[in-house]
Amino acid sequence: MDYNRIFQDAIDRLHAEGRYRVFIDILRNRGNYPNARCFAGHNGARPITVWCSNDYLGMGQHPDVIAAMEETLRDVGAGSGGTRNIGGNTHYHLELENELAELHGKEAALLFTSGYISNEATLSTLGKLLPGCIVFSDELNHASMIAGIRGAGCEKRVFRHNDLEHLEELLAEAPRDAAKLIAFESVYSMDGDIAPIAEICDLADKYNALTYLDEVHAVGMYGDHGGGISERDGVAHRLTIIEGTLAKAFGIMGGYIAASKTLTDVIRSYAPGFIFTTSLAPVLVAGALASVRHLKSSSVEREGQQAAAEMLKTKMRGAGLPVMPSTTHIVPLLVGDPAKCKKISDILLIEYGVYVQPINYPTVPRGTERLRFTPGPNHSEAMMDDLVRALVEIWDRLEMRIAA
Amino acid sequence: MDYNRIFQDAIDRLHAEGRYRVFIDILRNRGNYPNARCFAGHNGARPITVWCSNDYLGMGQHPDVIAAMEETLRDVGAGSGGTRNIGGNTHYHLELENELAELHGKEAALLFTSGYISNEATLSTLGKLLPGCIVFSDELNHASMIAGIRGAGCEKRVFRHNDLEHLEELLAEAPRDAAKLIAFESVYSMDGDIAPIAEICDLADKYNALTYLDEVHAVGMYGDHGGGISERDGVAHRLTIIEGTLAKAFGIMGGYIAASKTLTDVIRSYAPGFIFTTSLAPVLVAGALASVRHLKSSSVEREGQQAAAEMLKTKMRGAGLPVMPSTTHIVPLLVGDPAKCKKISDILLIEYGVYVQPINYPTVPRGTERLRFTPGPNHSEAMMDDLVRALVEIWDRLEMRIAA
Ligand SMILES: Cc1ncc(COP(=O)(O)O)c(C=O)c1O
Ligand SMILES: Cc1ncc(COP(=O)(O)O)c(C=O)c1O
Repeated sequence: MDYNRIFQDAIDRLHAEGRYRVFIDILRNRGNYPNARCFAGHNGARPITVWCSNDYLGMGQHPDVIAAMEETLRDVGAGSGGTRNIGGNTHYHLELENELAELHGKEAALLFTSGYISNEATLSTLGKLLPGCIVFSDELNHASMIAGIRGAGCEKRVFRHNDLEHLEELLAEAPRDAAKLIAFESVYSMDGDIAPIAEICDLADKYNALTYLDEVHAVGMYGDHGGGISERDGVAHRLTIIEGTLAKAFGIMGGYIAASKTLTDVIRSYAPGFIFTTSLAPVLVAGALASVRHLKSSSVEREGQQAAAEMLKTKMRGAGLPVMPSTTHIVPLLVGDPAKCKKISDILLIEYGVYVQPINYPTVPRGTERLRFTPGPNHSEAMMDDLVRALVEIWDRLEMRIAA
Repeated sequence: MDYNRIFQDAIDRLHAEGRYRVFIDILRNRGNYPNARCFAGHNGARPITVWCSNDYLGMGQHPDVIAAMEETLRDVGAGSGGTRNIGGNTHYHLELENELAELHGKEAALLFTSGYISNEATLSTLGKLLPGCIVFSDELNHASMIAGIRGAGCEKRVFRHNDLEHLEELLAEAPRDAAKLIAFESVYSMDGDIAPIAEICDLADKYNALTYLDEVHAVGMYGDHGGGISERDGVAHRLTIIEGTLAKAFGIMGGYIAASKTLTDVIRSYAPGFIFTTSLAPVLVAGALASVRHLKSSSVEREGQQAAAEMLKTKMRGAGLPVMPSTTHIVPLLVGDPAKCKKISDILLIEYGVYVQPINYPTVPRGTERLRFTPGPNHSEAMMDDLVRALVEIWDRLEMRIAA
């Protein structure tokens, strides 16, 4: 058994496929976002413009958020020092859980250390607790949901992306009295399309299924108070569980679910990924609290983001660049080849100071490799014009056909 | 299918067994640790002394740590805004990984959002990558390691706690050329005993097995630089992977592994729990960096903790209290019944302002329910005398036999 050969082979395979990942070494400049510093070259830090951040609204730099975090550091210190059960349950955690429950119109909410672990822990625990449960999972669901469903060890039926007919077909095939759970996302972050939530809830009602909605790429950004697509569409009350992150539009780190009191209590009491880990640092919780509260009452950031996304899509389409059909704030540009995708990204960074990461398999299916832009309220029209000019030049240089 | 009944039953079972968990609502007072405020009653916050924190050395309150975090908040903001691959790879992350690699004498290190997910992601990925791998797991391994091994879907053989003979028996039974991984902890945090690391490495050499050591309850606290028991025993170089947390002795939040360059790169490239989640907030990384660096050169905290643990054990034994045999900084007091354990904890909090959480199943096996004290450099002798007096009074009141 030659362990080193196995490990080296695993790495070599990635290089051979052109999808070995090189992390770009950056620091953001607070107050000047999306400007940042990049340490990739050998000449010290140089300025770049970030086009691929999931701090969609720049809330990670908001003065109220920073102030709340500074105050918490001074008041209680850094880490929580324990699991939620053993010394790590602070007043901040309870306040934020109340705030999030209210945001989604649910009785209760529960914090996790990340959106990833909130999906993983909740889905695996639910699947274990419901005897004979069948999970119906959208084929484009995020890796963390897939990990949770897999961890539950229960049956899984994958329905074609956002395909109501296929979902109903699968629901109808399952035994009438079996426990059922439909797991899906609102905004699919790599394509920027949106699930038909109301119609999925109709099917759930018809077949007596529970619903689990990942709103990670929508919370803070949609709905009058940032409650996500389920708030915008007025269907939050119809969902069994809404899951979200504090790490994207809210600009901090951490994840959560919102649901009924009993169901939240079940996850709190049974999920290993919630129980056996140090709770979120109070400093993060305080920052998230300030961020959630701000976005509950302010729509400027949301409107700015929507306007920026519209403008960038229009400019790209106008220049003949292959923008994928997105109905949200996400602007994906199809490349279709992992090596080319990485190459374009490298040229953009080195020659143009534009930072956008190549999105390759396993994040998206092979053959759909892309660049994914996330314009926000702080990206100016001048930045967009520079970006589009750079892309057109590179597309020409690499002799990539320009879409009609 | 009556979902609500199933959920309610799950909660009722916990109440019936006396192990429904009630989280105590607290805030620490920075600079005055282990003093804190408790919001459990109805009369606002009241002062308590924390005896069960895993911020073992009070580093979550250290001025250098707080200063580093404040500076980072001002410089780059709150969250990282992305996964490590997509915009979330900051200069701080790379610096801390270098620091941790050096701490453990390894070529490389990799950060995760928690110790839980570092165990889960690394073990499940390793088990999947090594064809036909058999994992040999100590029976008292932490839930996060168990989750990882389960997630790998590979064969698992459980050896009796710290039992070298049993481990060798199982290793000898396995096919000679099968991939093997021995997974264990250094300090077992609920009992306070220590694994025979060198002897386990001998067995690993003899049977060509990889080794995975969880040093979560030892990093920062053992070894001349805080490298854990593996540093203290001079065996770090013999271990394949050392795993640790930033959330206990280092006082912040987050987890990591340290290993060879290739193996670290494999986990970085293949582990979903590393890839598909927003990276640790830079503010946490900066705090951890300050904490790790401080504990590399300062031994005052470690010595203070060891002295405090020795003193408390001696005082408890002297008073006839049933201290369990611990060779470390952890001081467990056997109760052996979940309801009684909770009751003692409640009396301590309400009547004495002493906060120590009852430790019940599933954190420890049924019948071994206990109170677990973690004295640190900031617990004074007067605090200990008060604590022991309170315990003796309660033990008498509940007519629990005093050990000889
Ligand atoms: C759909 C979806 N769900 C969950 C997550 C995980 O959230 P977090 O970054 O908070 O772990 C992500 C991305 O990271 C995501 O894209
Ligand atoms: C042995 C052990 N490993 C791992 C963990 C998880 O570490 P973290 O709290 O950083 O998630 C814990 C406790 O929380 C633990 O006791």
